[in-house]
Amino acid sequence: MGGDHGPSVVVPAVVRALGELPGDVRILLHGDEPTLTAALAKHAEAARRIEVRHAERVIGMDEKPAQALRRGKGTSMWSAVEAIREGQAQAAVSAGNTGALMAISKLILRMAVDMERPALVTSMPTPRGVTTFLDVGANIDCDAARLVEFAIMGEAFHRAAHGVPRPTVGLLNVGSEEMKGHEEVREANRVLREGKIDLDYKGFVEGDDITRGAVDVVVTDGFTGNVALKSMEGALRFITSELRGALTGGVLARLGALMARPALLKFRQRLSPPPTAPFLGLNGIVLKCHGGATERDFAMSIRVAVDLARSNFTAEIERNMRRLPDALAEPAAEAEVAQGAHE
Amino acid sequence: MGGDHGPSVVVPAVVRALGELPGDVRILLHGDEPTLTAALAKHAEAARRIEVRHAERVIGMDEKPAQALRRGKGTSMWSAVEAIREGQAQAAVSAGNTGALMAISKLILRMAVDMERPALVTSMPTPRGVTTFLDVGANIDCDAARLVEFAIMGEAFHRAAHGVPRPTVGLLNVGSEEMKGHEEVREANRVLREGKIDLDYKGFVEGDDITRGAVDVVVTDGFTGNVALKSMEGALRFITSELRGALTGGVLARLGALMARPALLKFRQRLSPPPTAPFLGLNGIVLKCHGGATERDFAMSIRVAVDLARSNFTAEIERNMRRLPDALAEPAAEAEVAQGAHE
Repeated sequence: MGGDHGPSVVVPAVVRALGELPGDVRILLHGDEPTLTAALAKHAEAARRIEVRHAERVIGMDEKPAQALRRGKGTSMWSAVEAIREGQAQAAVSAGNTGALMAISKLILRMAVDMERPALVTSMPTPRGVTTFLDVGANIDCDAARLVEFAIMGEAFHRAAHGVPRPTVGLLNVGSEEMKGHEEVREANRVLREGKIDLDYKGFVEGDDITRGAVDVVVTDGFTGNVALKSMEGALRFITSELRGALTGGVLARLGALMARPALLKFRQRLSPPPTAPFLGLNGIVLKCHGGATERDFAMSIRVAVDLARSNFTAEIERNMRRLPDALAEPAAEAEVAQGAHE
Repeated sequence: MGGDHGPSVVVPAVVRALGELPGDVRILLHGDEPTLTAALAKHAEAARRIEVRHAERVIGMDEKPAQALRRGKGTSMWSAVEAIREGQAQAAVSAGNTGALMAISKLILRMAVDMERPALVTSMPTPRGVTTFLDVGANIDCDAARLVEFAIMGEAFHRAAHGVPRPTVGLLNVGSEEMKGHEEVREANRVLREGKIDLDYKGFVEGDDITRGAVDVVVTDGFTGNVALKSMEGALRFITSELRGALTGGVLARLGALMARPALLKFRQRLSPPPTAPFLGLNGIVLKCHGGATERDFAMSIRVAVDLARSNFTAEIERNMRRLPDALAEPAAEAEVAQGAHE
């Protein structure tokens, strides 16, 4: 029921996704039964793999998280997340209110790791494909342990979502030298360098490495990640509007722009923000699809959810998380000596 | 002598800048006298306003700051900065080694404020003009007092460099609500909101406000600022290379691109990084011009240096800095009550 368009986008998206997914994938559709059943009427074949779960109410797009928690029970969003806890679903996808989805998911599923709230992941386009970038907005104050947790979760996500067998991981910093950056980032670098966590860690990366594709997964705290993501989005918006201005400035430019139009459209599509953001760190797979998602976007989110549910995603995260206390325990002084001896 | 091109760019740039600046502006040119005198030979008129100061040596572009400090005395860079301390110059401009220039400036001029190193300022293009953005790389760990200092220095710089009588100031955060962000940023927000510092403070801004031009001056710590700046530069680089790919993809697109070429060139120029970065917080005006600077870039840096030297820049910063202890002293609890009463 969520997002800007509700069932008019979600139902065709579900039908589309089912057409492309293995025959044993089944969908629970939570929301107003008459509406959903009517929308499914013309899709008899897909409807056989869809089960409608009636929900009386929906969470409004403007509701505050606290409000959503108080009155969320019985809504379609609540019901979708609850189906995971009850073992009826392996993943939930929603285009609804982000804050509400995060709060409800956290309350119902609980965090698998010691974080304030789930980490938000985004995918940035690069010349080689995509970079997984986290945390982009949830966890402001991050110590070294949290940064290492992000690395573990981001790496497992990248493998599951993009099929890269052994993703490379970098830690965002202001320079690539070992002594650069604040204490938390230097300590996380030490832990990841030591190799007790099973990751292909490449060391520090810088802001421009996110879109360069220097590594598959770029890890940072939620404050820096949110600012960097929004800065890049703002720069992109500015550039496309300037480009429009430049290309409509004169007759020749206008004619040129007209001829280059299909190429420019393809270009804009490549740069548009990814439709899906998974919440990492929960006991369960929850994906947020952006509110303005098209049928194509929402279908893609469903496919990512299925990829995650069918992968070893959760088990891989758990396995590496169990190594964390030992990896963190090593005193910094000893570690430095050990590292010095390696060189 | 500095930068990728040395005197072959710097000397014509000085001549060009003098042609556009008031007649009482004079230039000290530090470096190898025979080279500089020869280069000035064909510019008799400008040469009357230029005095060559011989320096035996130059700082290499790859020298580490510590090395530059040890062997810097007698180099052209050292001599240029020393002329400020000796009252012979009001500002220094260099296209040389950034780290060395920062270290030498700090050693010779000393910091005017209690910061580890000078703050680095950059100017981002926006639809309305430019945003002054700092700190973009020098000071990693910033408490509230430091963030307020950046606001004071950035505001005075924006007025002096861009002629805006009363620049607006924003503090970079992950949301605009008062409770968002970490403690340092919330405390700096409280101090700036209270109005004891003489600034037109507009509250929190987000990453995309940098290129939107929501405020004239965007303030953040050196870690976040460096990451945001490099992320935007990386996004820009990716976008222009993708655009090139899109526009050379087919015959029509290629023809279109050819016709739109002048417009695209203007567009790229508008987006190219600003040539000048002032070091703020020193007892004196030092500007770093980027190493690959053209004659036009270096001339522009000289004009900005003159603008700063002729403005009330330093006095304005000092005046607001004196208000800082009182502004910081107010206990947070009381301030909240006072703020509540206002609303």
